[in-house]
Amino acid sequence: MFINPTRIIFGKGTENEVGKYAKMYSDRVLFHYGGESIKKSGLYDRVKKALQDENLTVFELGGVKPNPRLSLVYEGIKMCKEDNIGLVLAVGGGSVIDSAKAIAMGAVYDGDVWDFFTGRAEVEKALPVGTVLTIPAAGSEASTGCVITKEEGQLKRAVNSEHIYPRFSILNPELAYTLPPYQVACGASDILAHLQERYFTNSKHVEITDRLIEATMKTIINNIPKVLQNPRDYDAWAEVMWAGTIAHNNLLNTGREGDWGSHDIEHEISGIYDIAHGAGLAIVFPAWMKYVYKHDVKRFAQWASRVWNVDYDFFDEEKTALLGIEKYERFLRDIGLPTRFSHVNIGDDKFMEMAKKCTDYDTHTTGTFIRLDSKAIYEIYNLAK
Amino acid sequence: MFINPTRIIFGKGTENEVGKYAKMYSDRVLFHYGGESIKKSGLYDRVKKALQDENLTVFELGGVKPNPRLSLVYEGIKMCKEDNIGLVLAVGGGSVIDSAKAIAMGAVYDGDVWDFFTGRAEVEKALPVGTVLTIPAAGSEASTGCVITKEEGQLKRAVNSEHIYPRFSILNPELAYTLPPYQVACGASDILAHLQERYFTNSKHVEITDRLIEATMKTIINNIPKVLQNPRDYDAWAEVMWAGTIAHNNLLNTGREGDWGSHDIEHEISGIYDIAHGAGLAIVFPAWMKYVYKHDVKRFAQWASRVWNVDYDFFDEEKTALLGIEKYERFLRDIGLPTRFSHVNIGDDKFMEMAKKCTDYDTHTTGTFIRLDSKAIYEIYNLAK
Repeated sequence: MFINPTRIIFGKGTENEVGKYAKMYSDRVLFHYGGESIKKSGLYDRVKKALQDENLTVFELGGVKPNPRLSLVYEGIKMCKEDNIGLVLAVGGGSVIDSAKAIAMGAVYDGDVWDFFTGRAEVEKALPVGTVLTIPAAGSEASTGCVITKEEGQLKRAVNSEHIYPRFSILNPELAYTLPPYQVACGASDILAHLQERYFTNSKHVEITDRLIEATMKTIINNIPKVLQNPRDYDAWAEVMWAGTIAHNNLLNTGREGDWGSHDIEHEISGIYDIAHGAGLAIVFPAWMKYVYKHDVKRFAQWASRVWNVDYDFFDEEKTALLGIEKYERFLRDIGLPTRFSHVNIGDDKFMEMAKKCTDYDTHTTGTFIRLDSKAIYEIYNLAK
Repeated sequence: MFINPTRIIFGKGTENEVGKYAKMYSDRVLFHYGGESIKKSGLYDRVKKALQDENLTVFELGGVKPNPRLSLVYEGIKMCKEDNIGLVLAVGGGSVIDSAKAIAMGAVYDGDVWDFFTGRAEVEKALPVGTVLTIPAAGSEASTGCVITKEEGQLKRAVNSEHIYPRFSILNPELAYTLPPYQVACGASDILAHLQERYFTNSKHVEITDRLIEATMKTIINNIPKVLQNPRDYDAWAEVMWAGTIAHNNLLNTGREGDWGSHDIEHEISGIYDIAHGAGLAIVFPAWMKYVYKHDVKRFAQWASRVWNVDYDFFDEEKTALLGIEKYERFLRDIGLPTRFSHVNIGDDKFMEMAKKCTDYDTHTTGTFIRLDSKAIYEIYNLAK
């Protein structure tokens, strides 16, 4: 089963059309955003004007932080219910979009929206969500996913549902020009991770999606250095932005089971420490690979050869695989990311606690390529020291 | 702008779920199909049972032929209007699906449906269309396209509209097991042509879509010989079927202008002669390439190298390009297709007439990579003698 109904509006200046698309869903809009950056850049004003030009009633809720919090989601839900809002418009990156999706689910649900994150309830409907994307990274602009952190207990949990596919997403690569280089690199790491979570699978006969994933990875690997060198390179940003969406819009996992262990293992880190998700993934993913690659050396060797241009050593596929992992880790370091806990001054004192939390205290495992228990996760954290 | 809302239901036996999906749109269904093959294979019975199990009222219209005819479309429109039908269900290949789309457009239009094909009217709505695909080829199962032939004047014309995206398409690779090898090869040629029409573009900075197209082409090139050797190779068929859909669902032309000259040039052939569209494309496309490659030798050399594994000759890109075209033509011949008019005993006597018709008697040109007038088209036909 595959469906993705999100309408993509792509190109320079497209944020100025947001009113036209918003109007298709409601004349009462919750304008949801993060902090000051969209005000400084002028995006806030342009979006507001575009909405007002279509005579829409705009309600505002700013203040979304990275690793978006449940408390702000509750605020948004209250506004939607009280003010009879019909569309949640997220202007920002993955955190803002995820926060908007959670608000959209909660606004038409009588219980506590956290129920969806604990599995106590199934999402049956949601308000329509629209987005104006500013950061190519999370892929939330055309995905079924939503990750929220509950402050109490520092719980970071995910929901997936067709009902929260954004109805439209506006992608203007120019909006990424002002991103700090470190955030660009974190975005790249997140996008590569989305692709790798899908790539490392036990599903057999997945040639077309293998090749499409490889194509998307190569596009990121070729274009991230370009935008770091010249942040106003529209064409390179366009490649990155569209690749970031395709990486996570569910096309690339058709017919294959994803792993998602590394995401779970990372969520424990950014749930506790003040570290970006992409940076956490740069630490976790190479370590995960080193822990699991022997499970399917050929798959890692194929990835090393096709994505990282490692010469395929037919007599030593393990060497081929390991060279690929090494090139991946070097790429992450070259674009300015930490790839070890020591790079961000995180010690090993909470490794066991995080590993336990990741398995809900040994009540389940994570990942599908290899199912990982808390002991395995603990070892992966140690491989990333 | 990109959107593709078609729900894909993929896998073994999925045609038995068609009733469930049809019911989401209407309880009065036009079951539209071709000839005897779906009756012989048992598919007709399975679809009918699935529809009846959901208590749907089924109206039947068979008889769609390759290069589907306007007269049958009119019949279907009449049935839809008289019987208050709410869903057109196509069970078959691209011809059946295109016929269904035309019926769906005409059923909610007061004028003559041919108006949409001549450009006299714009499609503003259509009945919902569902499909059960039996032939990986045309990509119509998830496309905006529809090609119909008007018997009078042998006019083969196309419409593109968001309103005719199928609402759902059921893809069971098993249904392709019984296809004759020649039809398999014609399908492969059509799929490769869809990819090439998108690939040869003047749009710059299209790395991600270049790479995705190359990935999809390689999947076809690797798997078509497998299904020809073993028609019951489910896994290889699954690759081909999904690649055929992705080739034409509009994802791969995001940010780039397609050419579509070869399709227009071919339509004149299959409009007049009794030849499959895919076979016509196998004759036209290599000749088109020989005519246009000098316009962008590097693009052809990239395609030759990445798709056909031609060693990139940095000192002679033209040689690289020509070797790619040669390998493409050889592949088409190897899978059993004609690549010259002489292979299907078509002489040159109607070349000028077809070239003239293709440009509506010199009132316009075709193609965008290079705009082709009737003289150019005539030369291309001659290159394919």
